[in-house]
Amino acid sequence: MNKNNKPKAQLPKGFKDSSEENIDIRNQVIAVIRNECEKFGFKNIETPALEYTEALGKFLPDVERPSGGVFSFQDEDDQWISMRYDLTAPLARYVAENYQFIPKPFKRYQVGSVWRNEKPGPGRYREFIQFDADVIGISNNYIDAELCVMVAKIFLELGFTASEFKVKYSSRVIWEDLFKKINLDEIQIPAVLRAVDKLDRLGTDGVKELLLKGRKDKSGDFMQGVNLKDNQAEEILDFISNKTTKDDQLNSFEEYLQNYKELPFEFDPTVVRGLEYYTGLVFEVELTAQILNDKGKEVIFGSVAGGGRYDKLIARFGKEDVPATGISIGVDRLVYAIEQFDKISSSKRPLIIIANLLSDQISTYLKIADQLRNEGYACEIFYGSSNLSKQLKYCDKRKASVVVIIGEDEMENNTISLKNLTVGKELSKNIDSREEWKELKAGQFTINKDELLAEIKKIFT
Amino acid sequence: MNKNNKPKAQLPKGFKDSSEENIDIRNQVIAVIRNECEKFGFKNIETPALEYTEALGKFLPDVERPSGGVFSFQDEDDQWISMRYDLTAPLARYVAENYQFIPKPFKRYQVGSVWRNEKPGPGRYREFIQFDADVIGISNNYIDAELCVMVAKIFLELGFTASEFKVKYSSRVIWEDLFKKINLDEIQIPAVLRAVDKLDRLGTDGVKELLLKGRKDKSGDFMQGVNLKDNQAEEILDFISNKTTKDDQLNSFEEYLQNYKELPFEFDPTVVRGLEYYTGLVFEVELTAQILNDKGKEVIFGSVAGGGRYDKLIARFGKEDVPATGISIGVDRLVYAIEQFDKISSSKRPLIIIANLLSDQISTYLKIADQLRNEGYACEIFYGSSNLSKQLKYCDKRKASVVVIIGEDEMENNTISLKNLTVGKELSKNIDSREEWKELKAGQFTINKDELLAEIKKIFT
Repeated sequence: MNKNNKPKAQLPKGFKDSSEENIDIRNQVIAVIRNECEKFGFKNIETPALEYTEALGKFLPDVERPSGGVFSFQDEDDQWISMRYDLTAPLARYVAENYQFIPKPFKRYQVGSVWRNEKPGPGRYREFIQFDADVIGISNNYIDAELCVMVAKIFLELGFTASEFKVKYSSRVIWEDLFKKINLDEIQIPAVLRAVDKLDRLGTDGVKELLLKGRKDKSGDFMQGVNLKDNQAEEILDFISNKTTKDDQLNSFEEYLQNYKELPFEFDPTVVRGLEYYTGLVFEVELTAQILNDKGKEVIFGSVAGGGRYDKLIARFGKEDVPATGISIGVDRLVYAIEQFDKISSSKRPLIIIANLLSDQISTYLKIADQLRNEGYACEIFYGSSNLSKQLKYCDKRKASVVVIIGEDEMENNTISLKNLTVGKELSKNIDSREEWKELKAGQFTINKDELLAEIKKIFT
Repeated sequence: MNKNNKPKAQLPKGFKDSSEENIDIRNQVIAVIRNECEKFGFKNIETPALEYTEALGKFLPDVERPSGGVFSFQDEDDQWISMRYDLTAPLARYVAENYQFIPKPFKRYQVGSVWRNEKPGPGRYREFIQFDADVIGISNNYIDAELCVMVAKIFLELGFTASEFKVKYSSRVIWEDLFKKINLDEIQIPAVLRAVDKLDRLGTDGVKELLLKGRKDKSGDFMQGVNLKDNQAEEILDFISNKTTKDDQLNSFEEYLQNYKELPFEFDPTVVRGLEYYTGLVFEVELTAQILNDKGKEVIFGSVAGGGRYDKLIARFGKEDVPATGISIGVDRLVYAIEQFDKISSSKRPLIIIANLLSDQISTYLKIADQLRNEGYACEIFYGSSNLSKQLKYCDKRKASVVVIIGEDEMENNTISLKNLTVGKELSKNIDSREEWKELKAGQFTINKDELLAEIKKIFT
């Protein structure tokens, strides 16, 4: 509360409001992804935002943080409930709960918000949208490859060229072989993988610090290291720089990819994905196109999608091992990238505003509004002040395209005046004298009442 | 945890998973509402799922319940955060926070989930989707009428006829006049309005019990009454049965509605809406079409949308009074009704499955899959068992329309066999002998490889 004992009008840190343009582009992006998933035979289901905490399990990278990075509370019967932190853990619950009823293999996609109780930062939100596609019940690695092909096709459909992104892949299995070789304690594996996952952001030196004693970040926060022996850390860094080790899973996966030579796939052993539950192939999509921000600095997008095989996750619920693999697309980060690269433009429809000059003519105005809306135009009558210049200011603020004006003259002559605001603005740039301006009336002209639709259509073609 | 120390695969009470059909119809419903709102000049914004608890305020009908019916938790800096329980309270925060930047009037729509920490029951969920449209900054009651016209047009667009629903309206102001007349203590007003709001569900006798000592519901739970004097309760019940009292707001509102005689509007003083923050006109949409459930009992849908004027809510944040009005549509209840009345059918695309018989022919199968997907068909290759009858069982479970079969014969002859599963089922109903059945091959036929697309198109037209 502030000093007047009134609540402050502000959002908690790490949350944001979304604008019309942003939502519009996001919806277009989601429609593209949805369409591609459906073409590949995935069906849509939705799980709720809240689940029992024990059903979600603790698989977040930042398990060190209090409450494991999850928003949780106790229900009235004292059971802990959490907001989902991804869409995979709820899917595992869904599959275990409905195992006897679902087709096997089970292919589902889901789009929805997830929440992380993590430290917010620039561009790092605590609520974001994921789009996941998963296949349950097949261990054949062709299906992992198919997910990679599908995600590559999604990026092409979104307007990226094959040289503007990469689908990088690796396998947890080759890492496990390495860990055996260097006698790594099993309990250290998740922390080592999380450290390697930060290679893009921290570079080799940063990863080395994390593998050894630890590392201070820019904000001064110290991140505890894994405390490996020097020779263990060296072997891991050697492995990262050597891109040749493969295994059987990778071979079958690559055999499938051979059919899509036009798509940008690349083996990269440093792809490990931060989440603990992966067991086999892992992959991620990285945007490689470069772009500069306002300050001329290059914007690094990093990975905007990723996934892999998690054959043990569903067994948590007491089932035998159920093979599973999936991909998750970070919709908000992708939308941000698409906005930066101008790949999709807003589909917002033009707005027509009817000025409200004659208080007894509401029926006249309503008839025009309904006529325009029936043709699909966005149209509104101004109900605030009756002052025309205030109304025009509002039109400006709303970025309206056309104002419909019916005053006493127009009523008398059975006409309508239209003011094309876009044209007005364009013209005003090339007008020198005040007289010329008035003459052009800044895009304003008068028509017969029955020509309205025809004139409006002319304006918008 | 169950006895094996494994988590149980189940949802907390009051939450549900949504099926493909349900999501599909819901998305169509939302598209209709969105389109209508945009035609009326509303723009889309989105606020996050979480807000500071103090910013949301306590305006829920069930304020008696612990934590006020809201899911809340403390942030790391000890501030309380809550999941939004409606879309109006976050809008008030948004408007107060961005007041100087937004156009006035400000017309926004938002669709999203809201959460209530309430007692779940049959058809009563703790997570549901609302679609809200609000206008901030106009006290002119034409805009309240416009919201009612818009919502009526939405119901027509959704396939309801004007005789299948009603938009009922009233005003809080006429109630306030009554409360003055009967000397009602101001502190009792919210409880009285909540009691009147339950008239549909509980009838006059139930409301009377709530106005007096209280009422036991079917489950045995006792709901505390308002403890009015007998004569106060009688005056209120008289007022409910007398449908004539009006005020100025209602007159101007009805003047606007006169332009839409074809739409089903009805004055009804018992419409009060449960939420505490309404200050003037209130309205709700009721489905009047009747339908029987499986047991032959009539299904009562009650109100599926409602709203009204709330001129004091934004002033909570220290602003002067900002006039505001809005309507909220209960999307899940509406979708349920639409499913019952069969107003919208699922738009699911047909699924084509490619049987996987020859393990060395993945390239052949992939080419066919890509060809069909490029035409917009849903198509998948089966990667599980190589056993054809298992594959056909899967096709059945997925409700696939067509199976593409390429075995050794087909490879040799450069042909493709298609099995039309829909036709197969239809035919089998009229077949008597096993021979006839085999002859018809249950919708199966063989074509040249290059006729595939043409044949598939024939099947789906």
